[in-house]
Amino acid sequence: MSGSELERLIKLLSKLPGLGPRSGRRAALQLLKKKADLMEPLRQSLGEVLETVKTCATCGNYDSLDPCQLCADLRRDVTLLCVVEDVSDLWALERTGIYRGHYHVLGGSLSALDGVGPDDLRIAPLIQRCENGGVCEVILALNATVDGQTTCHYLIDMLSGLNLKITRLAHGVPVGGELDYIDDGTLIAALNARRAM
Amino acid sequence: MSGSELERLIKLLSKLPGLGPRSGRRAALQLLKKKADLMEPLRQSLGEVLETVKTCATCGNYDSLDPCQLCADLRRDVTLLCVVEDVSDLWALERTGIYRGHYHVLGGSLSALDGVGPDDLRIAPLIQRCENGGVCEVILALNATVDGQTTCHYLIDMLSGLNLKITRLAHGVPVGGELDYIDDGTLIAALNARRAM
Repeated sequence: MSGSELERLIKLLSKLPGLGPRSGRRAALQLLKKKADLMEPLRQSLGEVLETVKTCATCGNYDSLDPCQLCADLRRDVTLLCVVEDVSDLWALERTGIYRGHYHVLGGSLSALDGVGPDDLRIAPLIQRCENGGVCEVILALNATVDGQTTCHYLIDMLSGLNLKITRLAHGVPVGGELDYIDDGTLIAALNARRAM
Repeated sequence: MSGSELERLIKLLSKLPGLGPRSGRRAALQLLKKKADLMEPLRQSLGEVLETVKTCATCGNYDSLDPCQLCADLRRDVTLLCVVEDVSDLWALERTGIYRGHYHVLGGSLSALDGVGPDDLRIAPLIQRCENGGVCEVILALNATVDGQTTCHYLIDMLSGLNLKITRLAHGVPVGGELDYIDDGTLIAALNARRAM
């Protein structure tokens, strides 16, 4: 019903997270309606990103510079190293604007089911960074999932000999959350970690 | 936190229907993770579509050919002309595989609120096609919205002198729909148009 070029574009758009076949078609039609305002700029932008954006060899963030802006920023605290699973987690922490240390992106979490072992993640470079000195505290900001926590324990094992302070994010009631809607595990963690006022 | 090239890509992706700032970031990360499998093909595909896909001068469909595959298909019934608001509606009807006539895409519906008048739609070419002869029945497959129905009435007025059979899609209970969840207007329409078994 439409050209094969268009079918191919729809197929590719459908592969983006959050889009399926139907929204892929809607996106393609939107692009065709806004050729000059959206389609041409998107094509150019993809080309630019393909050419310039690389993975930072130090932390694993995506940037057009290597080392990336975060690693190169001299105002950031080199004694603090925050370990995250993915670049999206790094971006989420950066959006808070509260953390002024450095990052290390693992590129995922250990998972027996998915066959992800320590060698598939950027764990060796993390140990290397910690051994090189300068780092005083490692913050394990991994997801509170089974795989995330497995990775947490593995990293604690690996880093335990290096005389570092190892911390993890606090578990508890999300700000704005209603107790009635929160799972038992979170409530138990929040109770156990209760704080004096 | 990331290069300006990447920020620009995220901003453009966020403009696609169904995506917002958060899913735009997720899409950008997915593209970066799959540079060879997704990002480069998507850039190429956008370029191809930009170069080849045009609006069919006859019906208004998008295709790399003009007249499009549907208009050029000699097996299709030239006496039947189905009028739709948008290319997405044409695609939806084509997916059913049941309709074997020709199409005419208006490019929207009349809307006093949005300032869309008859001259903003492909209404004059529709009248022209009907006046040229060959068409026996015009099916008005417009949306069952206020604007769609306004457009319907306007088209009926415009086409009434041309000795054509003018039909519209049936209103009624959607197949698979439960009566309890269907609005009063649809139920009334379904009752009024009830059929003998």
